Amino acid sequence: MAWWNTHRDFKNSINKDINPDLASERKFPPFNVEKLTNLLDGGIENTRVRRRVEAAIHSDPVFSRENQYFLSSSERYERGIQKSIHLKKKMVQLGWMKDGPEIQWLNRVLAGDIGFNVHAVFVNCILELGTDEQIAKWIPLAQNYNIIGTYAQTELGHGTYLRGLETTATFDMSTQEFVINTPKVSAMKWWPGDLGRSATHALVLAQLYIKGKNYGMHPFLVQIRSLHNHSPLPGITVGDIGPKMGFEHIDNGYLILRNIRIPLQNMLSRYSQVLPDGRYVKQGSEKINYFSMILVRVSMIDNAVVNTLTKACVIAIRYSVVRRQSELKPGDTEAKILDYQTQQGKLLPQLAAVYAFHFIGPYLHDFYNRVHHEIKSGNFQSLPELHALAAGLKALLTEYSSAGVEVCRRACGGHGYSMLSGLPSLYSYVLAACTYEGENTVLYLQTARYLVKCFASGQSGQSLPQSVAYLTSELSRRCQARDRSDFLRTEIYLDAFKHRACRLIRGAATKLQAMVQSGVKQYEAWNSSSVELLEASMAHCQYIVVKVFVDAVEKLDSDPAIQKSLKHLCHLFALHWIRTNAGSFLHDEYISGNQLDMVTASYLDLLLLLRKEAVILVDAFDYTDEQLNSALGSYDGQVYQRLFEWAQKAPVNHQVNSAYENYMKPLFHSALSKL
Amino acid sequence: MAWWNTHRDFKNSINKDINPDLASERKFPPFNVEKLTNLLDGGIENTRVRRRVEAAIHSDPVFSRENQYFLSSSERYERGIQKSIHLKKKMVQLGWMKDGPEIQWLNRVLAGDIGFNVHAVFVNCILELGTDEQIAKWIPLAQNYNIIGTYAQTELGHGTYLRGLETTATFDMSTQEFVINTPKVSAMKWWPGDLGRSATHALVLAQLYIKGKNYGMHPFLVQIRSLHNHSPLPGITVGDIGPKMGFEHIDNGYLILRNIRIPLQNMLSRYSQVLPDGRYVKQGSEKINYFSMILVRVSMIDNAVVNTLTKACVIAIRYSVVRRQSELKPGDTEAKILDYQTQQGKLLPQLAAVYAFHFIGPYLHDFYNRVHHEIKSGNFQSLPELHALAAGLKALLTEYSSAGVEVCRRACGGHGYSMLSGLPSLYSYVLAACTYEGENTVLYLQTARYLVKCFASGQSGQSLPQSVAYLTSELSRRCQARDRSDFLRTEIYLDAFKHRACRLIRGAATKLQAMVQSGVKQYEAWNSSSVELLEASMAHCQYIVVKVFVDAVEKLDSDPAIQKSLKHLCHLFALHWIRTNAGSFLHDEYISGNQLDMVTASYLDLLLLLRKEAVILVDAFDYTDEQLNSALGSYDGQVYQRLFEWAQKAPVNHQVNSAYENYMKPLFHSALSKL
Repeated sequence: MAWWNTHRDFKNSINKDINPDLASERKFPPFNVEKLTNLLDGGIENTRVRRRVEAAIHSDPVFSRENQYFLSSSERYERGIQKSIHLKKKMVQLGWMKDGPEIQWLNRVLAGDIGFNVHAVFVNCILELGTDEQIAKWIPLAQNYNIIGTYAQTELGHGTYLRGLETTATFDMSTQEFVINTPKVSAMKWWPGDLGRSATHALVLAQLYIKGKNYGMHPFLVQIRSLHNHSPLPGITVGDIGPKMGFEHIDNGYLILRNIRIPLQNMLSRYSQVLPDGRYVKQGSEKINYFSMILVRVSMIDNAVVNTLTKACVIAIRYSVVRRQSELKPGDTEAKILDYQTQQGKLLPQLAAVYAFHFIGPYLHDFYNRVHHEIKSGNFQSLPELHALAAGLKALLTEYSSAGVEVCRRACGGHGYSMLSGLPSLYSYVLAACTYEGENTVLYLQTARYLVKCFASGQSGQSLPQSVAYLTSELSRRCQARDRSDFLRTEIYLDAFKHRACRLIRGAATKLQAMVQSGVKQYEAWNSSSVELLEASMAHCQYIVVKVFVDAVEKLDSDPAIQKSLKHLCHLFALHWIRTNAGSFLHDEYISGNQLDMVTASYLDLLLLLRKEAVILVDAFDYTDEQLNSALGSYDGQVYQRLFEWAQKAPVNHQVNSAYENYMKPLFHSALSKL
Repeated sequence: MAWWNTHRDFKNSINKDINPDLASERKFPPFNVEKLTNLLDGGIENTRVRRRVEAAIHSDPVFSRENQYFLSSSERYERGIQKSIHLKKKMVQLGWMKDGPEIQWLNRVLAGDIGFNVHAVFVNCILELGTDEQIAKWIPLAQNYNIIGTYAQTELGHGTYLRGLETTATFDMSTQEFVINTPKVSAMKWWPGDLGRSATHALVLAQLYIKGKNYGMHPFLVQIRSLHNHSPLPGITVGDIGPKMGFEHIDNGYLILRNIRIPLQNMLSRYSQVLPDGRYVKQGSEKINYFSMILVRVSMIDNAVVNTLTKACVIAIRYSVVRRQSELKPGDTEAKILDYQTQQGKLLPQLAAVYAFHFIGPYLHDFYNRVHHEIKSGNFQSLPELHALAAGLKALLTEYSSAGVEVCRRACGGHGYSMLSGLPSLYSYVLAACTYEGENTVLYLQTARYLVKCFASGQSGQSLPQSVAYLTSELSRRCQARDRSDFLRTEIYLDAFKHRACRLIRGAATKLQAMVQSGVKQYEAWNSSSVELLEASMAHCQYIVVKVFVDAVEKLDSDPAIQKSLKHLCHLFALHWIRTNAGSFLHDEYISGNQLDMVTASYLDLLLLLRKEAVILVDAFDYTDEQLNSALGSYDGQVYQRLFEWAQKAPVNHQVNSAYENYMKPLFHSALSKL
């Protein structure tokens, strides 16, 4: 029977066997894969919980992602809302508690494909910034979705620079109300999620004015749509900002407020309050505001960024052992593309980065919790260090991960351009993270500002916080490596990263100092040095990432087989970054050209070693096919069959072709007489 | 009157004045902008023709791109077909001839947003590969759109490696027919444009079999859909491959052929022919096939790649003098973001690249024409050089331009993520070019193969073709620069690029040779060196691009003011590449760390210089607002107004929100009693 007959019935046509090209990669795992899975999940119990969550979600048709790539953005939006509301019910049914162990897996299992995300920010802000009365009034409503809120901060003309926000909230003592206004076009709220088509309420960030005096940005609770019929309330103009590169399921919106009056009680007042007589009272530190922003950055690294790069690696690496192209050895069958050194050089550094970044989340969370604890007892000392780390690592990881997903996508050739590969959606998703929660260049420069300060403190003999202590440590002037194997020693490459970060920070700080001393204004000197400050900041963050990876792998000595593979990944990761940033290692001859050749030699050796384990190493993350939602990346490797099946389901293949009816038909008919 | 009242009537609300922040940038142009426009167009007459074409196209509502970002892919497809058919009529009306001066501007003016592109390839192939009879039969039909053809080469499992294609065409002598078959899933045709929903015919590339013997790939003309009712003919399975990252208006398709019989006359037979008795006859050289592939690559550099990067630069640079963020100088109004050094460091190198790449098209076209001329007289000597150049430059320019568009997109912050900015579409458009017409890594390695051969020839004393002659020239061992101003001398940086390319090519070739001499098989040695070969190939192509730019600018001495600005761009471009590839310049100490600091100093000086001219330099490309189709990039700089106006037109803002009706309404209603 010809092959195409077996394909007539689409539902049953996929051969459920594992593609032998993929199966052969799994035959001789160098370690216990399940154990690595447990380790990555943070323990065997976590793996169990995750799989329970997966079973519950994947078996529920409401959460199905089948045909997702064929949906319009309106359909995606509606499904997102449906899923959110259904999830809340389901959690009650299943007895999953708000602080239960299942919650941490929901984002991964649902693949972020759910609505009311900014509503959750709205809820958190009220909990964080509201008084007890405000919490008692609003939280039950919000948690039951009886109202939907958005967090309306960003304006059409204002993003990362919060002080520039132009929306005003003026206290009218005569009525005991705030009057909220959008004073000009550039001041309209723009981008907030859940605003465009859903929200009934908005937490509006606005400049507070009392008796003509500006008290800075404060949060105000404003109802924007009727709870009767969802129409905008008088004075409100609200809508959707239109199509975006990704996040089709989110209704990012715009909002204009014209003389909107809200009661005095609607300013969130845990930390600052306006009294009926117009007095302004502050309680506690503003820094707490700052602190919740850090948590968002810390959390997004795991949830939005590392997960996405991981999925892209799973897809691209599985595909690369199934796809065959060209004869590697003349006369042989076509080779798996992962057998080409260039393909290894594209994908394996991304795989190494996935493992490196996997350890950053816990590292930052630990640090965050420690600082949180300190702050509770009134000690804000570590906050600047935490802020600098979170900002820089957010920038580095989002930037590298975006580039990495794109490397994976492109490594899948033409099929990586098809939405059915899953890769374009991953890319447009992770990409956004370079901009939201602080534009990366701005964040890098915030970290740089902290580094320059620390450098100066170090110069003047003060002791430095842990993550920057190396700025005052003794540094060797030359790399000690004598042959390629030396570059497989962590202390050798750690020293290189440390030395380089130090040199770049010193260089930028010295330039800055010299300019100021020569009479240039501080702000001008800063701007004129910012390209170099940026490079210094990156180098510092890279050092931290390599260091955290090295430390994490060293702790894995209870399973030597796993540790060995992860060590190779760690080496590859470090050497990849040395190679791709070679200029700054060679610049002061810390590393010689000769040594760089050793780096390359070891790097190429590692590619070959890790090539053999690549599939195992991506399998260990244990992503389900539903989470990957990729015709190229499924566990069974039936790539071509799945592409064909999915494509056939595209709606355009089942609709009347009006372009034919309207334009082509008459032209084709006139050919009939001529052929 | 409050500002929002003036915005009620969307049609009339955009202030048609130039935004003063943009106007001020145009006040003191350092040269005659119109003259630069003429120069970029290739002469004053060309500018005239282009503007005539623009006037004709932009005034015709069929070609309007208004609301394009709100259209579904089906609507985009139908509009593309409509435009193609309308354009043909219009050209007749306007008297534009097929070889007239207007044609070269059509792609730019229509912004590629038109159907039947692969049909044009189908037509060209028949003209190129068909006999006179075949041309006489098919071309009139095809040119009048009485039939629509596709070029069906790529298969589900086979892309760049053409010899791997699996579709078969078996000669059946008894009926004087070819029998075309898709022998397995991976052999189905996949990706051809115009195939999914339009084509009536396909030029199927298939392995020719006569009496069991394979004669390699040949082109066969196959009807696939009925001219009566457009349904697939018996034995044909055809459809659309579904959604992609871009090219929404193109119906890329799949095609399965089951025992499709076509007459002997349907194999295109200008260069090889099957006689009725089954004899296979070759006429002329196969290399001619090869040659048309080169032309496609040469042409796409201008049409798809450089145009796109240019538009992205226009948008991002105009936006960056309108967008203001943060106080640069404390107490001042917020600064234009282009005044930040980091923003200059993002955008100005892209602007320089636009100018650099602008000169590559003519350079390659000239070379192509020369070789074409030689080939006509039977001289194929320069073909390998042309092939290597076109392959490598295609790879370099598509890769760099994709990255550059993304830099521009990201430099626009959140608004760059909105489709209304125009930037996401430009990105997904240019990105595809990294894969189609030859995957870039494969192409780089083809160039590397040529370079390694030339290196060996050079070693053995043979003289080398012009573009690689430098491989045997005398090279200085150290860069001669003594201060930063030396890096503004073209001979200094040209020598650096030459030296580096030479070193990398020699290094890779030497490694390859050594491995083979030590007993490693040639193919293994090649694979094991391919990461280094890739780097060598890139370095060679970068040298060529810098060289072509330098030569082009040197010829502009008739207008010293323009020449001066372009010289600055050329310097910036070269220094940017030295900085971003610093490792390979420092590696053998050709450039010292000290000299690299001079490079950085000059680079930063140039950023400041070119900052002032940036808007003028993008204006000179004279893109119309219709071509840019960007709320951020219009000539008048009314960014925020336009974003707001366009967003309001989004269909979701005028539709019933079924997510509200279906899911949110009951929840909100139950809040009414509680508030």
